[in-house]
This record gives sequence, structure tokens and C-alpha cells, in this order.
Amino acid sequence: MTYPFERPLGATPRPEGGVELRVWAPRPERVSVRLGRTDHPLEAAGYGVWEGVVDLSPGDDYWFVLDARRHPDPMSRHQPRGLRGPSRVVDPSAFRWTDGGFGGVPLGDLVLYELHVGTFTAEGTFEAAIPHLRALRELGVTAIELMPVSEFPGMRGWGYDGVYLQAPHHAYGGPEGLRRLVDAAHAEGIAVVLDLVLNHLGASGVRTIKAFGPYFTARYDTAWGKAINYDDAGCDGVREWAVQSAVALVRDYHLDGLRLDAVHAIVDTSPRHLLEELAARVHAERPSALVIAETNRNDPRTVRPPAWGGLGQDAQWADDFHHALRVLLTGEREGYYRDFGTVGQLAKALHRPFVYDGIWSEVRRRRVGAPADDVPPERFVVCSQNHDQVGNRAFGDRMPAAARPLAAFCTLLSSATPMLFMGEEYGEPAPFQFFTDHIDKRIARATRDGRRKEFAAFAAFAEQVPDPQAPETFERSKLTRRGDPELAALYRHLLRLRPQLPREDRDTAFDEEGRWLRLGRGPFELAMNFAAEPRRVPVAGRELVLATHPSELGDGHLELPALTGAVVR
Amino acid sequence: MTYPFERPLGATPRPEGGVELRVWAPRPERVSVRLGRTDHPLEAAGYGVWEGVVDLSPGDDYWFVLDARRHPDPMSRHQPRGLRGPSRVVDPSAFRWTDGGFGGVPLGDLVLYELHVGTFTAEGTFEAAIPHLRALRELGVTAIELMPVSEFPGMRGWGYDGVYLQAPHHAYGGPEGLRRLVDAAHAEGIAVVLDLVLNHLGASGVRTIKAFGPYFTARYDTAWGKAINYDDAGCDGVREWAVQSAVALVRDYHLDGLRLDAVHAIVDTSPRHLLEELAARVHAERPSALVIAETNRNDPRTVRPPAWGGLGQDAQWADDFHHALRVLLTGEREGYYRDFGTVGQLAKALHRPFVYDGIWSEVRRRRVGAPADDVPPERFVVCSQNHDQVGNRAFGDRMPAAARPLAAFCTLLSSATPMLFMGEEYGEPAPFQFFTDHIDKRIARATRDGRRKEFAAFAAFAEQVPDPQAPETFERSKLTRRGDPELAALYRHLLRLRPQLPREDRDTAFDEEGRWLRLGRGPFELAMNFAAEPRRVPVAGRELVLATHPSELGDGHLELPALTGAVVR
Repeated sequence: MTYPFERPLGATPRPEGGVELRVWAPRPERVSVRLGRTDHPLEAAGYGVWEGVVDLSPGDDYWFVLDARRHPDPMSRHQPRGLRGPSRVVDPSAFRWTDGGFGGVPLGDLVLYELHVGTFTAEGTFEAAIPHLRALRELGVTAIELMPVSEFPGMRGWGYDGVYLQAPHHAYGGPEGLRRLVDAAHAEGIAVVLDLVLNHLGASGVRTIKAFGPYFTARYDTAWGKAINYDDAGCDGVREWAVQSAVALVRDYHLDGLRLDAVHAIVDTSPRHLLEELAARVHAERPSALVIAETNRNDPRTVRPPAWGGLGQDAQWADDFHHALRVLLTGEREGYYRDFGTVGQLAKALHRPFVYDGIWSEVRRRRVGAPADDVPPERFVVCSQNHDQVGNRAFGDRMPAAARPLAAFCTLLSSATPMLFMGEEYGEPAPFQFFTDHIDKRIARATRDGRRKEFAAFAAFAEQVPDPQAPETFERSKLTRRGDPELAALYRHLLRLRPQLPREDRDTAFDEEGRWLRLGRGPFELAMNFAAEPRRVPVAGRELVLATHPSELGDGHLELPALTGAVVR
Repeated sequence: MTYPFERPLGATPRPEGGVELRVWAPRPERVSVRLGRTDHPLEAAGYGVWEGVVDLSPGDDYWFVLDARRHPDPMSRHQPRGLRGPSRVVDPSAFRWTDGGFGGVPLGDLVLYELHVGTFTAEGTFEAAIPHLRALRELGVTAIELMPVSEFPGMRGWGYDGVYLQAPHHAYGGPEGLRRLVDAAHAEGIAVVLDLVLNHLGASGVRTIKAFGPYFTARYDTAWGKAINYDDAGCDGVREWAVQSAVALVRDYHLDGLRLDAVHAIVDTSPRHLLEELAARVHAERPSALVIAETNRNDPRTVRPPAWGGLGQDAQWADDFHHALRVLLTGEREGYYRDFGTVGQLAKALHRPFVYDGIWSEVRRRRVGAPADDVPPERFVVCSQNHDQVGNRAFGDRMPAAARPLAAFCTLLSSATPMLFMGEEYGEPAPFQFFTDHIDKRIARATRDGRRKEFAAFAAFAEQVPDPQAPETFERSKLTRRGDPELAALYRHLLRLRPQLPREDRDTAFDEEGRWLRLGRGPFELAMNFAAEPRRVPVAGRELVLATHPSELGDGHLELPALTGAVVR
């Protein structure tokens, strides 16, 4: 018996007609497919895989029936009626792509723009995002990064509780909508990266997915409950579910990359780590596609090649940069911000963004991370705002206005790969709050209570924390597109200057008391003042190339107003 | 504040007099040392470390007092009155070593002999083992491997529920006894490897160790309960406890190696895995010392160098070899033996012992392992008997007599590093049963019940399964040294031939139906017959070099009786 995972799981339309159905379901005794009112039994193909060819066409709906209970397909390509509805057959080859001339964006040219489809436009659909692409391209963005679109509960949500990985959310416009958005982005020369969650499964889907097989393991605990079973008995089918879904998304939607959510919560002790296998198979399918891992481990192995013991990811998020910058700019010291607050930390982060590279962290109560000097800086993704850093604040408020120009200066001129959060490029006044539309009352209640509890320490306003289930919380988070034209101009200037700066830094100097920082990048010098008063920063350059605010270049020094930055050469 | 773990934890006698005490105890508010009836407070040195110099001498006893409760030192070098008694100051430099001329045994020359100190001799002490060393050397053994000696509950036990890693069990003769045994072994040219358990802590010690700090984590579950905290908050002190203990044992007892128990149960997602750090620091202390990991992962990364993504262990156990051999010889198919049973598997294991090198395992319900062709064969330790494979049988019975010669033939001529289990070299008739002496009644009962339950499926004899707590179970497991002189002679011959065989195999051939197997090793051919009848095995060699039983070499073939092996050239 050959190992049956080598052929794809899910519903695959056949050129000669009919649809081949293949599902991994080692738990049930019998598996059928339900079409209309009729159940057609599938045949056991070994290793828990069931298969059969049925008389279905693209656009038809189906269910799997396991021991007399119906369930959607874990590999569903479309859930037109949501999480609890049937799966729909989709023919990935039916779309007429026009992006033949687009070859992706090299990592070194990446300027990411994170957007949430539901709140990026009034309509909240893939389609509605299309008219905004040109402005993003003109701004200097080279890739949009969509927050998760895998079918999640209800009609609105951040997307991190998705269940059907391969099914673009029906409220966003489903598979057809996503394809049109990607095709349009490619027409503008913009790449598309998709956020994919493989570290846990939305609670609403746990029961149905468990009916198929051992998707969960008691071996490891994550912050979100039982870990997904990537290395315990029965894990081969779970690994295929994850990897085939990732590969299929990249292939069928011409994606230029995946952003993998919180991979530190994926524990896998197999000889070949899930992430290594995933990156290799994604690259084999589409060599230009990038795999970007979000992780809090500060471990350079994430992006080192497997031959050096790495996981072979193309890039990784490095939140230390954000924290170092945010705390310098705002003085906040709550929670994990406690570990930050010095100019020296930001200076370190502007070289390689692991501030914690093997040193003791008061917050984590251990030494964290390892040095990453051997890793090219573009393999780290940094930002001054993102969905978490904005949205996980009690009220989802964005970076204070006074700090925005210097925040942008540091991030967009960083030698790491910068990421913007939708709206920051013009100082969007709307917040980005935490919103959900849980269809399961128990989960809805737990989510609401959890949110209140999280901010209960601040008793004064705990009651005012927005209710995640309320539609207004979602509506309030939509972009207004009213903003600050001066800030918008600065973003454009910064992104135009960015490609001219050599990546490696030199001659970094800073004054912890004076709260200024200066570093060289080739012929350029970047100077920043984090103090509340003007500062005189020594520089060698004689030409003012760019300044966030009017600044005066003297003989061997630069006069920088409070919270500003400038580039000289 | 410098990171205080750089200096050793524990009780260190100072050349100028007095003893420096250092203990990692981030949990308690106050820590003192109790000498006699007086408590002397220690000073907080940061990061949860407490230290002080007290008026103590080697041979004196002490306790740590945490928030008014007394506890032995987690880094205790001696527990003269057992697990619940005080710790004793030991001066590691006081012993007069005579082993200056001994430089260890290179991995490629290693022939291990696993022994349990308590049952190896009637006396059950380190000292009593010494007179037997010469016979082992004459047999061809180059290293003894002691089952764990770290202070464990009571007066008898296998040792895998130890608590004080650095304290050689007082019933075995304590630190002085171990030093004498190692010195005597070195005088015979025999290396000493010590089994060390870092994957869990004996249940009797959990409460006292937890009083010091976060030694356990809820993140991971092991078969033995909560996992040890090697990567969660507070792990730095736990890592130092493990690594400093390993290094101190190697240094203070002149050990030639450590065998690390069940490292697959050590989960560590840090940038530098505990085992990598441990091996590096052991090697720095004593370059000739070998670190040998027991693992069921079949992962060649265990022994690859860190620069290639490996853990840098010198060798690893490879139980597939045992299982493939055992099942062929005995036809047993219970439990994990179900995954084995073909001659082809043993042929594979005689090349590299991972039979499961990426293929599906029915027992583990997943694909297991990865190919290890790049790993030199001596980096794998193989055996046909060991404490687990004998002792974890209901009655601890050894390999059936008829199978012993062929078992020894396959193991001792394997290109992997062979390990014998005490007594197998002459066909010891005594069993090696599971015995304990738990001092905690609850644990004693649970152990007894667990043992009965384990074999409850075989209802016929579940009641006859020896009681682990009964002293007779221990007594019954002592070597009688009555055996089979013919078998003993065969062991000598095999170990004399072993160094002459080149390591790499060639021209392997086998007949699954006929149950014979032949492979080349340089100018030699090894032929084995696993059938219950004689077999004619084709060979090219014309000289019979060695045979387990009278065998006839014909023209181009060898006539092998049932269950025999022979070498021709």
C-alpha cells in the first residue's frame, strides 16, 4: 500500500468530469459524502484516508458523513453558508488570471502593508479593496498582507479563530473575490501575502474537526488550549492538512507569500519540523513565494537554512523592534513593555532587531533569544503599528499623533523589512478594536468576559472596554480615510529614500541621558531625537536629505526638535 | 549585576577554609543554611541565587532552610542518610586519584557493559564491583555503564527515580565508593559511563525541589508526569541545575561519559537546546568524555554537530536494532514488537540501526525517524539485552537460551557500538526484575499497582508478577555468576574478532522466506540463519573464521544450523 497522502486531500474536479473526493478520517468506522439527500459511501484507501469519485460539479455543495453525522470538509475550498454550512466544490483552474507578467517581489524589496479585509473598506470585501491598490503602490508599498481570511465564525472578526484554512471567508467574497483581489494587485505590481493560522483552531471548529481524526494532542499546552497534533500518534494526516492547505492556497490564489501566525505555539519534535516541510513544499510549488513566521522566540534558526539547523523560513517577525521603539516614544511600561525603555535597545534593534539575543528578560524570567548577526536584516519584519499592537489595547487606539513621524522614520528606514498597518500612512483617526461574531453563545460569552477581565486592572474604564461581539465595535474600526496630509507626504518621502540606504549600519552612537541616537548607513547618517526637548546631534554630513520636521544642519551637528528624525549625507 | 550562574551552585569547600554555599531558590522570601541547630541567613545575589560562606568542613552536614522549612541541597554531593536526610559537604579534591595514565576510550573502540551496582554483586556496592573488572577487561569490555546512582528513594531500586543528581547513592557507598570504582576501572583500562536522568525527577523529590523554584512546567506532559522546566519562565536556574550537575559528575568522578536517560522526554524550544549546551560544557570540562543520549526519536540530528542543526551528542541509543533482532529470534509480537519481524529489517539495522527512518509505524501511528546514512555507525549504541528489555518483562527473564549465541553474534559484530547487559556474557540464569524501595507509601502503592496493571492483560499470571517493593524481588535479581562456559567463550571470540571487521557493510543479501541473511564487511562475510531448520547460505569466502555452532563451509555456500551465525573470509 503506497502512502496515500501523496495525492491531494479535498474535492478535486476531474478534467473528464466528476469530482474526486479524498478525506483523512481515521476515527470514524464509515465515511460517506452527502449530495442533496443521498449518501455515497467512500472507500478506505489505507492510513485513514477515504476516497471516491462522485457526480458533482464546481458550484455544487457536499457534506462528509462520519458515522451518520454530517460535517464540512476539513479541506473545504468554500463555505458559502459559513462554518456550519456545507462545503462547495471549487474549480481552481476556472479563473482567468491576467498576472502572467508578475514575478513576485524579492524579499529585499518588500514593504508590507497589513490590512484587514473587513475594515479596510466600508463594504469589507476583497473586491472593494481593489480600487485602493494604486494609491498603495504610489505610496511605495510593494505587498499587502491580508489578516487571516480562512472561514471563521460569523460575519466579522480578526480571523485568528478560523477553521477551514483553504476557504476564503464567504463574507469577504469567497474564493472568487480573493482571486480578483490578487489578480488586481499583481496588475499594480503589488504582491499579496496571506496570514495563515496553524498553531490552533478556532474553538467553534474543534468538535467537528476532532470527529475526523486526532487533530489535537495532550502533550503540549498553548495559550489557546490544546495544541495541534503535529508530532503525536496520527500526526501525519494533521501535517498534511496544514501543509497541503498552505500549498493549495499559494498555488490556487497565486499568493506571493504566507505569514504564519504565532509559530512559537507549534511544538514539533519530529526529525523534520512542520515549518521546514511547509516552507520547502511552498517553495517547490511557487519558488517566488515567501514564508514569513511570526514568533516570539528571537531564534535566528527560524530563518536559517535547514542544512544549518534552521527552519528555512524566508523571514520572521521581530517584535522587539516595535517594543523598543514604542516605549522610547511613549514611555509606556505596562506588561511586556517593562523589558524596554532605553535608547541603547533601539540602537541594537536598528542593527538586528533581536534586543533580547541571549540576555535576561525580567518579563519572561529567563534569558531569551540568540544573536542573529549572520542573518541578513531583511529577513526580519518590523513595524511601529500592527493589528496586535493597536488592536490589543483596551480601546484599539493607534500610535499617539506626536510620535507618528519619528515612529515612521525609524521603521521605514530600518534595514529590516518594514510593515505598515492600514491607515497609519496618513494618520487614520479610527481605532482598530477587537471584534468577533461568535455563533456559539458559550464562546461569545467567554470572549466578551475575557476581554473585560484582561483590562479589569484598570477598573476606571473596564466597563467601557468595547464589547467584541457588538457590531458597532466592528463598524467603529473601519478606516475613515480622513487623515493628516503632511504625515502622508512624509511616508511617501521615507519610502522613496528607503531603497537608497545601504543595509548595513556603521558608527552607531547614542546618548542615553540626552535620548538621541545616530547611525551611519553608507554615505548617509540617520539622526533621531527621542527627548521632549530639542537636541543637538553630532553628524558629519553636510546635506540635509530628509527631516520629519524642520531641522537645522549646523557645522558638525544637527539641531533636532523633540521627537523628530532626519537624514543627512 | 553579573549573571550569577557563572559560578557553581552547591557547597564548595574553599582552600582558605570554610565552605561557600550557593543555591538557586527564586521562590522563597528568605534562605538560610542550618548547621546543627543554628540557621545562618544567606544573601540574595540576584536572579534568585543566594550565597554565603559558612564555617563548615568536608564531612559536615547541612540543610537549606526556605521560609522556615528545611530541605537538602538540590546540588547535594552526598546524602549519607538518604533522600530525607541532610546534605553532606564533600571535598572533590581530597581523593588521591591514580589514573593519570588513563585517557578514556575512543567512541570507535567502545564495548559497553551495562551494570546495576545493587545487583551486580552480593554486597551491591561500588567497592564490591572492583574485583570483577579484570574479567570484564579480559572479555573485551572497554567501558562499564552504571545504571543511575543519583540518590533515589530507599535502599534499592533501578535508579530512574533519583532526586539528588550529584549524590552517588549512600547504599552503594556514596562519593568515596564511586571514586574508588572509577579509579580501579581506569587502572584496568576500563572507562566508566554513568546513566543520568534529566527528563523527570523521582516523585519522592518533587515537593522539596519545587520549594526552591519552578523546576516543573505545565507546558509539556511526559509519561512520568509534569515535564521539567527547561524553557519556560525561570528555566535558567533549572538548566544550570542539570548542566552543572552533569559537568560536576564528570569532573569530580573522572567519568568517561554520561548516558542520558530518555531524552525524547526533554522538550526544549530554546535557541540552544539543553542537550547541546550540556554536551558542549561536558566536552569543555573533559574532552574525552562521551555524551550518549537514549532517545526513541530515530532522529540523526541527535548526534549531528550543532553547526548542522544537531544536538552534538556523541552517540545515541537505537532500539530498533534490538527489536528487529529480538522479534526475529523469538517471534514475540507484543506491544511495540508488532512493528518488527522481517529479516529485511535486521538487514537494514545492520547497516544503520534506524529501521524506522521516515517510514510508517503501525505502533506509533505516524511516520517515524529520518535516514542516518551520513552518521558513522559507531554513533549508535545497540544491544540484544538491556535493563529495560529484560527488566520490563513481567518476570524480568533474559533472552531465551537457544537464541543467545546468534543474538550475541549480531550485536557484537554489528558496526554500531555494542552494549552488553551484565550477566548476558555467560548466560546468567537470574532474572533482572523491577524493584523499588519507595519510602513514600502512596508512591509505593502506586508503583505496585501500576506494575500489576501493566501485565493485567495476561490475567493468567498477573497475580504472580513480582512485587517491586518486596526485598526478594531485588535479591532474586542479583547475579549468580553461574552460567554457560561455551557461551562465555563465544562472547570472548566475538569481541576479539570485532575490531578486525571494517565498519561499512557491502553486498547485503537475505531471503525473507528462508530467513537467512548475509552481508560483507571488508574481506569478511557474516552469515546468519534465523530459521528453525538448517539453511544453506551462499558465500564467497573459503575460510571459516568463527561460528556460533559447528557449521560446514562448502564450495560457495555455508551450511548453517538453526539459529546460528558464522563469519567466513
